[in-house]
Amino acid sequence: MRLAVMGAGDVGRSVAELAGEYGHTVTAFADSASAAVNPDGIDVDAALAHKDDVGRVGEGDPADALGAEYDALVEATPTTLGDAHPGFEHVRAALEADRHAVLANKGPVAERYDDLRELEADSDGSIRFEATVAGAIPALSTIDGVGAERVTAARGVLNGTANFILTRMATDGLDYEHVLAEAQDLGVAEADPTFDVEGTDAALKCAILANVIHGGGYSLEDVDVEGITDVPPSALELAAEDGRTVRLIGEVTEDGARVGPRLVPENHTLAVSGTMNIVQLETEHAGRLNLSGRGAGGPETATAVLSDVDRLS
Amino acid sequence: MRLAVMGAGDVGRSVAELAGEYGHTVTAFADSASAAVNPDGIDVDAALAHKDDVGRVGEGDPADALGAEYDALVEATPTTLGDAHPGFEHVRAALEADRHAVLANKGPVAERYDDLRELEADSDGSIRFEATVAGAIPALSTIDGVGAERVTAARGVLNGTANFILTRMATDGLDYEHVLAEAQDLGVAEADPTFDVEGTDAALKCAILANVIHGGGYSLEDVDVEGITDVPPSALELAAEDGRTVRLIGEVTEDGARVGPRLVPENHTLAVSGTMNIVQLETEHAGRLNLSGRGAGGPETATAVLSDVDRLS
Repeated sequence: MRLAVMGAGDVGRSVAELAGEYGHTVTAFADSASAAVNPDGIDVDAALAHKDDVGRVGEGDPADALGAEYDALVEATPTTLGDAHPGFEHVRAALEADRHAVLANKGPVAERYDDLRELEADSDGSIRFEATVAGAIPALSTIDGVGAERVTAARGVLNGTANFILTRMATDGLDYEHVLAEAQDLGVAEADPTFDVEGTDAALKCAILANVIHGGGYSLEDVDVEGITDVPPSALELAAEDGRTVRLIGEVTEDGARVGPRLVPENHTLAVSGTMNIVQLETEHAGRLNLSGRGAGGPETATAVLSDVDRLS
Repeated sequence: MRLAVMGAGDVGRSVAELAGEYGHTVTAFADSASAAVNPDGIDVDAALAHKDDVGRVGEGDPADALGAEYDALVEATPTTLGDAHPGFEHVRAALEADRHAVLANKGPVAERYDDLRELEADSDGSIRFEATVAGAIPALSTIDGVGAERVTAARGVLNGTANFILTRMATDGLDYEHVLAEAQDLGVAEADPTFDVEGTDAALKCAILANVIHGGGYSLEDVDVEGITDVPPSALELAAEDGRTVRLIGEVTEDGARVGPRLVPENHTLAVSGTMNIVQLETEHAGRLNLSGRGAGGPETATAVLSDVDRLS
């Protein structure tokens, strides 16, 4: 397939780098300031070298990428809330041109799911977005396989940064601020960690899971959210005395969607360590399925994107 | 889709019972002695009641089912080794009639994979067999998604009976014979447990995983197999003193396929308890993925079969 890759952060870069191995051709590649476009396939290595040198993947305007020849648009610009600009417009442009769109950007799927499905209904193209929930973990394709109507609940550890912090606080008895600083040094937490530690990122994933399981109707404001910034080391110590620990759990049930710190037994399946993610699905006929792995990272998330591209063809 | 369900054991029964909920029609249903056939859809409840009453699902000859009108054949007769009779012939009949075949029967996929793929290449129908490896766990569709060529290894706990026995031996310090008798009382082990406790069942699943990952060439005789019948309680005690336990692990790597008891840390992801199964995939770009859940059971395995049927359409 010919891919138009929108976004040149970790995920967009990895998608562009790995596309060839999957038998695809990148015909357009855009960052926020520029684009490289070639109907025969751009030189990905040259575009990335150019990005590293001068901060731009190419010499064209970003909008050129939307007008390029492609079969599937890969939306990998940063997640934004509310109107999910500009990711939503990119996907709209693809669907209105009867092209497919594969999203790694959570914004449009969490915040404007019903709008996306409406655009898809009027298009010959379709959308997929496995990469938006827990990176490489095949959560959405497993829900697809079981049938969304037969998944009665989903829960899990959906944010690696928050989980890394809770794991370190518990194992070493350190307080939140100390571990956050360490996580920032390691590159596990961003300079502004708000999105991760206040539960917003996990809540967006819950909104997406809720949209898939319940057939739409959810956005971030429908998710009850509590982050980990107020979890004291003493709570983790008390939990440990009882053989338990604290995890930031996102949950979707028939009652709705919520994210918050929860007590779980130390050996519980949900008590994954460090930056690992886990998604647990309750199914009507097949019991509980547990899916765990790396929930973030460029190549990991790109793997989910490229699996989606393969499912389109 | 119109389904011809071959086999009326736990899995065949569940497939027939759940087919309607998935929007499919059972046009043929056969056990080893009889068949019920109706191009408009058989009465599944009546067939199962008849089976319970007189030991036959219908009044027709089993061969009638192969001549029925159907889009996909579900092969759920008991797993047999070597020529994989009669499952292989059922699948052959479907493919030669340009129909699809979905297998829950491990025999043909483990023992005659290359023959199956050859028949498929000459047919308008295709084969799927998610249910043959670890029941409800989406192991094969996840390998499909990642791309078999990018899965560098697979390992896991692939037999619930053996895992139940090892778990009980470890937690209660009981010997093999004692726990086996208990498992038989609970219906977790069969009267003749050879297939499970000697590792044959896990080895068949390894052969299937190896065929998928390496593109064919494997059968049971290519898998190095050791069961759990010689694991003494003392080995489990020694392991426990060291924070470890014993699990029957099946493994597929570039060096081949093997099954045997292995020491694993007690809190290790692979150390699932009771009848649970787990499949761990090592991938080239997405790290390690862990998939766990119920590896057996009628409705659980039927869920995998019916997911496969949905992927055909």
